Amino acid sequence: MDDHEQGYFTEENSAEVVIGRNKNAGDARLKEVMAVITRKLHEAVKEIEPTQKEWFEAIMFLTRTGQMCTDWRQEFILLSDTLGVSMLVDAINHRKPAGASESTVLGPFYVHDAPELPLGSNICLDHKGEDMVISGIVRDTAGRPIPNVKLDVWQTNDDGFYDVQQKGLQPDFNLRGVFRTDEAGRYWFRAVKPRFYPIPDDGPVGQLLGKLGRHPFRPAHLHFIISGDGFETLTTHIFDPDDRYIDSDAVFGVKKSLLAKFEKIDDPERARQFAFANPFWETKFDFVLAPEKKG
Amino acid sequence: MDDHEQGYFTEENSAEVVIGRNKNAGDARLKEVMAVITRKLHEAVKEIEPTQKEWFEAIMFLTRTGQMCTDWRQEFILLSDTLGVSMLVDAINHRKPAGASESTVLGPFYVHDAPELPLGSNICLDHKGEDMVISGIVRDTAGRPIPNVKLDVWQTNDDGFYDVQQKGLQPDFNLRGVFRTDEAGRYWFRAVKPRFYPIPDDGPVGQLLGKLGRHPFRPAHLHFIISGDGFETLTTHIFDPDDRYIDSDAVFGVKKSLLAKFEKIDDPERARQFAFANPFWETKFDFVLAPEKKG
Repeated sequence: MDDHEQGYFTEENSAEVVIGRNKNAGDARLKEVMAVITRKLHEAVKEIEPTQKEWFEAIMFLTRTGQMCTDWRQEFILLSDTLGVSMLVDAINHRKPAGASESTVLGPFYVHDAPELPLGSNICLDHKGEDMVISGIVRDTAGRPIPNVKLDVWQTNDDGFYDVQQKGLQPDFNLRGVFRTDEAGRYWFRAVKPRFYPIPDDGPVGQLLGKLGRHPFRPAHLHFIISGDGFETLTTHIFDPDDRYIDSDAVFGVKKSLLAKFEKIDDPERARQFAFANPFWETKFDFVLAPEKKG
Repeated sequence: MDDHEQGYFTEENSAEVVIGRNKNAGDARLKEVMAVITRKLHEAVKEIEPTQKEWFEAIMFLTRTGQMCTDWRQEFILLSDTLGVSMLVDAINHRKPAGASESTVLGPFYVHDAPELPLGSNICLDHKGEDMVISGIVRDTAGRPIPNVKLDVWQTNDDGFYDVQQKGLQPDFNLRGVFRTDEAGRYWFRAVKPRFYPIPDDGPVGQLLGKLGRHPFRPAHLHFIISGDGFETLTTHIFDPDDRYIDSDAVFGVKKSLLAKFEKIDDPERARQFAFANPFWETKFDFVLAPEKKG
């Protein structure tokens, strides 16, 4: 039996034996990825030492997670989000030069065909919540304002839902719009003060969060995708630092550099100019775009 | 913003921030397990540095794997099997004292209510394949034969399928039986030479194996669950060392100590005694049971 002396699976050599089996993989990248996944998975199992019952519970958790997915619900993305993996992948793929604005997760509620609107437009179409005006300048890393930069923005309404979550209940494209900076790199538009809201938590991921003593909420934020010729497209949020969940975002999207200041303004004259009730909210936030990567 | 100086997610501290969020978990074991899983998952992502597209492909692979599962098909167990995780969990849960027979995976085709049969019975009810007689002795780690040990055995038929995979096509309980050792610790029964067969490979796991240059086959084997009063129950196989897949079992179940010898016997007189065609196959395999763990 000398032929069989080597190469069988043991507790000690387990990962090496499994990885060795992929020696004929046609796709070098897949081979490399599976080697890392196999090694880390075996390390985790050796550290955890699951019972057979625990292992089976993990199998059934993953099964339920897959079976929760539909065209409208991606429970494995929620799992990735709540384990910080989505943010980590975002960070790895968007390392920025010093001074450039930081990115955060895209989230599942982006819509690619929001209408392009004149600066100053009010994207709040359902007239709910507290009026807010947002303004700022988009610059390059040398501090120069960039004209004609496109800002694609979206947010929840005052009930904490995006329009696509409440089709028929909210006006189409409620709280969405595309703006372009003027010749001085300035943007501004009118909207509503955003609200915290829960990620969908009626599935296996929500149950796991519950068992871990975690809540499902994301702190109030506005989404931006900011793009200009010659610059790296920036996908990010700005956050309300006074939100109760600002230090415990369920998906770990908050970065210190993305905290805006949401200021309550008591000024009847400015309110009248904006067609707002007085008082209203104002936030100012400047962005810095990194130069496009050569490639 | 001093309140927010600490604790936000960065590429560097990603795992610590996510693990810290579970500080209020009610279940200490779940908290520990999730800490290891989170740490290893983040280590894997940092080493792989997936693109957003690769990350999404992984999400969709897991989704398809969950959606392939039914009451009759467990694709996540197949994934665990083919990544060596099932064997690793088995190894961790069945560390044996020196000299005791080693365990291997149970597999999905065990049936708990197979009939108890007299020693020597032929469990091959479909009359396909090459006749085989199996015999041996069950001993304790001191070498003493153990009487009245229960051996629950099952195997594929000559087409490479278990009875439960071909309900209606194979006789019920074809190639299954429960035997008990005699006063000298001996067992023997008649069956058929087992065949290699593929794990179900028409799903995401089969596709992954294909991309990794791997085949889906398990080398020929017989399954045993061996139990006796005062001994640890042993779930194992014996394998045909001459099988073409003996060094590449798709689920890594082979251990050197589980290689039996399948011998071709040309002996018309013995064949007649067994009601076999001549020549026939014979295998002899002794088992050693570990004492039951206290606790």
